[in-house]
Amino acid sequence: MPLGRPTVVPDDGLTTRERRQRPLLIVHTGDGKGKTTAALGLALRGWAQGWSVGVFQFVKSGAWQPGEHAALAELDRAHRDHGVGGPVDWHTMGAGWTWSRATAAADQAALAAEGWAEVARRLTGEAHTLYVLDEFTYPLARGWVDIEEVVATLQARPGVQHVVVTGRGCPPALLDAADLVTEMTKVRHPFDRGQKGQRGIEW
Amino acid sequence: MPLGRPTVVPDDGLTTRERRQRPLLIVHTGDGKGKTTAALGLALRGWAQGWSVGVFQFVKSGAWQPGEHAALAELDRAHRDHGVGGPVDWHTMGAGWTWSRATAAADQAALAAEGWAEVARRLTGEAHTLYVLDEFTYPLARGWVDIEEVVATLQARPGVQHVVVTGRGCPPALLDAADLVTEMTKVRHPFDRGQKGQRGIEW
Repeated sequence: MPLGRPTVVPDDGLTTRERRQRPLLIVHTGDGKGKTTAALGLALRGWAQGWSVGVFQFVKSGAWQPGEHAALAELDRAHRDHGVGGPVDWHTMGAGWTWSRATAAADQAALAAEGWAEVARRLTGEAHTLYVLDEFTYPLARGWVDIEEVVATLQARPGVQHVVVTGRGCPPALLDAADLVTEMTKVRHPFDRGQKGQRGIEW
Repeated sequence: MPLGRPTVVPDDGLTTRERRQRPLLIVHTGDGKGKTTAALGLALRGWAQGWSVGVFQFVKSGAWQPGEHAALAELDRAHRDHGVGGPVDWHTMGAGWTWSRATAAADQAALAAEGWAEVARRLTGEAHTLYVLDEFTYPLARGWVDIEEVVATLQARPGVQHVVVTGRGCPPALLDAADLVTEMTKVRHPFDRGQKGQRGIEW
């Protein structure tokens, strides 16, 4: 028997690699802070593994240019220039999706649906190993994107593709489909004492 | 009246800049996933603001070389080579603190106390704008580091220095002192179904 070949292989239809690394559907929800930042921390880990990371921000504001975008763009550049880590592909709905001709002036519902359609295409094509669908719960909760189609597409996604969805008020059907759900619960927040959000902390 | 000078200045003893950017003591606690990753997401935002970021991992294992360390080291390199973002200084207790001669073989309690003493020195000297004290709740809960001294030092820290403490079972005195507390609550986790941790997700 070749060295390292197990004598018994579990009858679960998975390869050894698949058994070790199963694709996870992760949800960060709840009213507390940390949903997006925790997804970004996972993006750091994925980058370090050499994974292709796709970040899709389902947010409205176009002027929004968060610090994390600059940081992940720098890590993408390090990958291209020095071959370290993996590529990071960042798209924001706010200014109109990067791949699309529609601008931020377009109907928000249509933009959200367009964003999901692109994510679905990439899942089918196994474009990334880690997808961050930031604030994706909002278009789902508003019915701009069909929750049943999303769950079906996620459940049928091929290969090893991890997906992290963030946002408050996650629809129960997505929670039920998720492998890992963390609820970020607000215990105390400076906004409650009238303090405004500040750079470096909120963006 | 010069343009942009407010006619009424709040009688709170703060400068305008201090009022806008108040130093935050942040705690990520609870049994759920996302405590460390959310702190790392804040480190990304701080880096993008050009802040000096200090990460102190109060963990035991010495062989542990998480992906986030590689990613933040790359961002530190980008700062040094291209002048983008801020410097990132990473220290792990596991292999013996970077600045110390004590090794991982040393007494864990002594190493933890040594780590906190260094953080306290840096706070006094305003060495960083953002401190991540990862898994710092464990030495606190075990009494290796005195909670009252920690709270007093944090409350007396000068300037604008943000501190993020992560870990389960945060002592109440630290929770009381914090400006922002998020509890990461586990709703569902693949470990519960017997799946092992995997690279890129857990480290």
